[in-house]
Amino acid sequence: MSVSVKNQIHSFQKQHENRGRLLISCPDQPSIVAAVSAFLLTYEANIIESSQYSTNPEGGTFFIRIEFECPELLSKKDQLEGAFAAIAESFKMNWSLTFVSEMKRMAIFVSKEVHCLREMLWEWQNGDLMSDIAFVISNHEVARDIVAPLGIPYHYIPASKDNRQKVEEEQVKLLKEAGIDVIILARYMQILTPEFVDAFPQKIINIHHSFLPAFVGARPYHRAYQRGVKLIGATSHYVTSDLDEGPIIEQDIMRVDHRDDVDALKKIGRNIERSVLARAVKWHLEDRIIVHGNKTIVF
Amino acid sequence: MSVSVKNQIHSFQKQHENRGRLLISCPDQPSIVAAVSAFLLTYEANIIESSQYSTNPEGGTFFIRIEFECPELLSKKDQLEGAFAAIAESFKMNWSLTFVSEMKRMAIFVSKEVHCLREMLWEWQNGDLMSDIAFVISNHEVARDIVAPLGIPYHYIPASKDNRQKVEEEQVKLLKEAGIDVIILARYMQILTPEFVDAFPQKIINIHHSFLPAFVGARPYHRAYQRGVKLIGATSHYVTSDLDEGPIIEQDIMRVDHRDDVDALKKIGRNIERSVLARAVKWHLEDRIIVHGNKTIVF
Amino acid sequence: MSVSVKNQIHSFQKQHENRGRLLISCPDQPSIVAAVSAFLLTYEANIIESSQYSTNPEGGTFFIRIEFECPELLSKKDQLEGAFAAIAESFKMNWSLTFVSEMKRMAIFVSKEVHCLREMLWEWQNGDLMSDIAFVISNHEVARDIVAPLGIPYHYIPASKDNRQKVEEEQVKLLKEAGIDVIILARYMQILTPEFVDAFPQKIINIHHSFLPAFVGARPYHRAYQRGVKLIGATSHYVTSDLDEGPIIEQDIMRVDHRDDVDALKKIGRNIERSVLARAVKWHLEDRIIVHGNKTIVF
Amino acid sequence: MSVSVKNQIHSFQKQHENRGRLLISCPDQPSIVAAVSAFLLTYEANIIESSQYSTNPEGGTFFIRIEFECPELLSKKDQLEGAFAAIAESFKMNWSLTFVSEMKRMAIFVSKEVHCLREMLWEWQNGDLMSDIAFVISNHEVARDIVAPLGIPYHYIPASKDNRQKVEEEQVKLLKEAGIDVIILARYMQILTPEFVDAFPQKIINIHHSFLPAFVGARPYHRAYQRGVKLIGATSHYVTSDLDEGPIIEQDIMRVDHRDDVDALKKIGRNIERSVLARAVKWHLEDRIIVHGNKTIVF
Repeated sequence: MSVSVKNQIHSFQKQHENRGRLLISCPDQPSIVAAVSAFLLTYEANIIESSQYSTNPEGGTFFIRIEFECPELLSKKDQLEGAFAAIAESFKMNWSLTFVSEMKRMAIFVSKEVHCLREMLWEWQNGDLMSDIAFVISNHEVARDIVAPLGIPYHYIPASKDNRQKVEEEQVKLLKEAGIDVIILARYMQILTPEFVDAFPQKIINIHHSFLPAFVGARPYHRAYQRGVKLIGATSHYVTSDLDEGPIIEQDIMRVDHRDDVDALKKIGRNIERSVLARAVKWHLEDRIIVHGNKTIVF
Repeated sequence: MSVSVKNQIHSFQKQHENRGRLLISCPDQPSIVAAVSAFLLTYEANIIESSQYSTNPEGGTFFIRIEFECPELLSKKDQLEGAFAAIAESFKMNWSLTFVSEMKRMAIFVSKEVHCLREMLWEWQNGDLMSDIAFVISNHEVARDIVAPLGIPYHYIPASKDNRQKVEEEQVKLLKEAGIDVIILARYMQILTPEFVDAFPQKIINIHHSFLPAFVGARPYHRAYQRGVKLIGATSHYVTSDLDEGPIIEQDIMRVDHRDDVDALKKIGRNIERSVLARAVKWHLEDRIIVHGNKTIVF
Repeated sequence: MSVSVKNQIHSFQKQHENRGRLLISCPDQPSIVAAVSAFLLTYEANIIESSQYSTNPEGGTFFIRIEFECPELLSKKDQLEGAFAAIAESFKMNWSLTFVSEMKRMAIFVSKEVHCLREMLWEWQNGDLMSDIAFVISNHEVARDIVAPLGIPYHYIPASKDNRQKVEEEQVKLLKEAGIDVIILARYMQILTPEFVDAFPQKIINIHHSFLPAFVGARPYHRAYQRGVKLIGATSHYVTSDLDEGPIIEQDIMRVDHRDDVDALKKIGRNIERSVLARAVKWHLEDRIIVHGNKTIVF
Repeated sequence: MSVSVKNQIHSFQKQHENRGRLLISCPDQPSIVAAVSAFLLTYEANIIESSQYSTNPEGGTFFIRIEFECPELLSKKDQLEGAFAAIAESFKMNWSLTFVSEMKRMAIFVSKEVHCLREMLWEWQNGDLMSDIAFVISNHEVARDIVAPLGIPYHYIPASKDNRQKVEEEQVKLLKEAGIDVIILARYMQILTPEFVDAFPQKIINIHHSFLPAFVGARPYHRAYQRGVKLIGATSHYVTSDLDEGPIIEQDIMRVDHRDDVDALKKIGRNIERSVLARAVKWHLEDRIIVHGNKTIVF
């Protein structure tokens, strides 16, 4: 990692050392907010931003994201987690308590198309994707020159249909050893096995080069061109074992017209893909996303 | 038709009595523009706006739309058409020569959801959809109160799967008798038979309440909700005998989020549907659209 | 008011008779959420949706919007208001507690351009602007035919620079007598005096036909045309005594090009104006807006 | 210039060696298209794409952009230019005839903010900004590491209010010697003198970080924050001696909300700025823009 990025991360960590986030989903009932806010108050935590949503006033699911400042947060970490676990149990919560100064460990997968990788690295250098990029994995050498100068390790692992199992074993070993929290498929054009996907639930984010559920699968720009659509799009979603069917995080589109051939669609599409993926990853890093069934709540 | 709309149409006709439009598609070759522009010059026509596009410099298809002012246009009508037919033949053109002061005759089909009809009537009253609305056909009585006060005939023809043939016979009779040029399906929730569709090629415009090709068929908002998309859309297209597969004219989308249930999607969607349909109809009335295979060129 | 709208309102009121909303802004401190949520819990209120934001963790301003369901809400009304007033005082809150089944009383002002009025009445009939439209005031007779058939009183009060004081006296009398909660200037092309504006603080919503702060004042489309902009817009804002300088609620834009003359800009602009105003009014009716200085927080 | 970019440019030139473009504006009259298309036909040129627009059918200005394929184009260059000059004179045309394989020579000016420069270099490497980037000039050293590895000369010329004349002399010398066709101010935060601007009429493209004419001048994001706008934007325009008042080429916006402070506006704004500038430069390189008074026609 370059010195300037290191300094930037260090200063961000310093600035946010007392900043925490609670993400909760549980069966709805009246007393949840009161209980959680009383809990935070016990630790003198001040709620900076919170968003809450219930699917249904009667018998629905309750979701909340709370960002708070708490004096001496890191020293109270175990205490907070222990105490909250008790509350969480009584409300049957799915929950996570994250500490903003503890960077998420990220791995990026890429094939030959480098625009999404480039955008992510760029935003990361600008301080807009606060995380610890542990390494980049690719089945090609194309992206090495973009990654290596930033001091990020680059693992070239050739992949094909035939060696999928061996490749994934190697990848999983790297990911586990590095304690990776989130995997970004930045146009990684290999299909992952269900075993791989299940090993990282809600931790793999993909960018698909179409407005899902239109053009699921291969060659979406070709098919968009064939169909004569007037808008093309991109979709970022969590990866599940159903191809292109995981919970959608973000989508966007751009206008095209009859003059745009497949190459033009690809060029226009690259701009959508990179901004959609960058937004999705940013929201994930900021703990803004709760997965509920096959959907996302983005706070 | 109300007096104010009549006056508006009359004044538009007066103002555009020398305005004509040529729409051409043909195999590409170097001399087309020279031939057409020399032809127009012979009649002292001045080109006001023209747009041209070729699919491929070598052996492709050539498309052009020319809007022109020609002194004494209406008196030269037959002469122009005859003379151009000869040129058209030599270049193997598909072509149309339209006279802006000759309003297109329009029929609107609607079921229970009236927002698209309302938008069209509104834009029509504002002078933004210059046409002669001959009548509205509906399988419900809901829209009568919106249509009748404007002096537009309203034909109530109950329709179901069982009486489709009889209903369509009645509809076709009305359409043929009135010399209808364009049929707008403004959320007409009945499937048309291939016989009906074939009787009005490239003359039926539909609005589908999804971003095609996503959610072809019934209940697109329910399916959009199930899928958890972050954008919903609408598509206006020419109707062919393949359901929701005709050439797309216009599409648009709006952003939705986890708080939007199916009813909210429908409400948001109504705003997209009505503006997308209004734009598509406007472009059709202004002779801006050329259908090429299953796609549209919109100039 | 027509029977169908009456029924719709009645059914909405029935459905939401236990629904309340709290809007709060106050100096930030850690215990606010805990206090408010404990208060709501005392009355068995269940928080359905809440959004909170603080300008600054240290010494900033705290804002929250809470929507809740509370059994027997209307019978507990005075009790709730009294009890909350005590909490509010201790935290120095600006606050409002609203009861969703108590419709806001609305007056709409319009001049000759009726598209914004039409859109509002339409959305209102669709059940998307839940409110009690007490009357429409206009300095022209143009809109009477749109308003009267809906059973809404229409007050024609001719206005000019010369009789401003007398006109406003008459308007204020009507507004006060009817207990109006919110005034919508739906393209009312008269300048209001500071006295009028001050009598209805944060209760007057205007639509300005430009992307503010560009083209403050008169004839924005002419000036947009002169400047050759590639986008035009509209802005809805609360009216203050500074012309076009009040807190912005919502803005939007559409793309234009060199072919669009002033008339075309006006036509395109009408579509932006009506949707921007409708959204702003909807958010106001749903108590989603907190004014802070010269800005709005829209939850 | 790197080998891969060189190869890419070379292959583009090869592919387009017979491709030319005519841009014309002149007083309108009926025979222009006929004359121009007859002229092109004489040289066996095939029109690939053309767009035409007239401000006014009677006594207005006529604009056309024609892209054509002409066998052996480069060998006929002088002949074409000479022959067309005669036609041009008779119609009092402002015109340019460009040869697509002759790359425009570009200079990029940048200060400390490098996002626009980066985007341009990236698009250029992708083959989306076909041009010959002669050098980058900067009043800072920040961007050297981005530029130098691509083999593009980097001229560091410190600039301030005090040495403006000397700096500009040095810049003009470099620009003239290199035969620069177009200068891109990619967030160059120095004001240019009228003398500099006049030396390169319609050849300097700037990106301003606001939606003009809102927030002309310095610190637009601070002022947007103060005003509480709900959309921020960027504008690319030709530079004239009136600051931020030159003909607008392209504009775009993004949505912001109350949570976005000045830093957030800047980050969001960077994404608008870079895409707006890239589109404007692309259109300029493709000869799509005609300046007319203080406006642009973009074909």
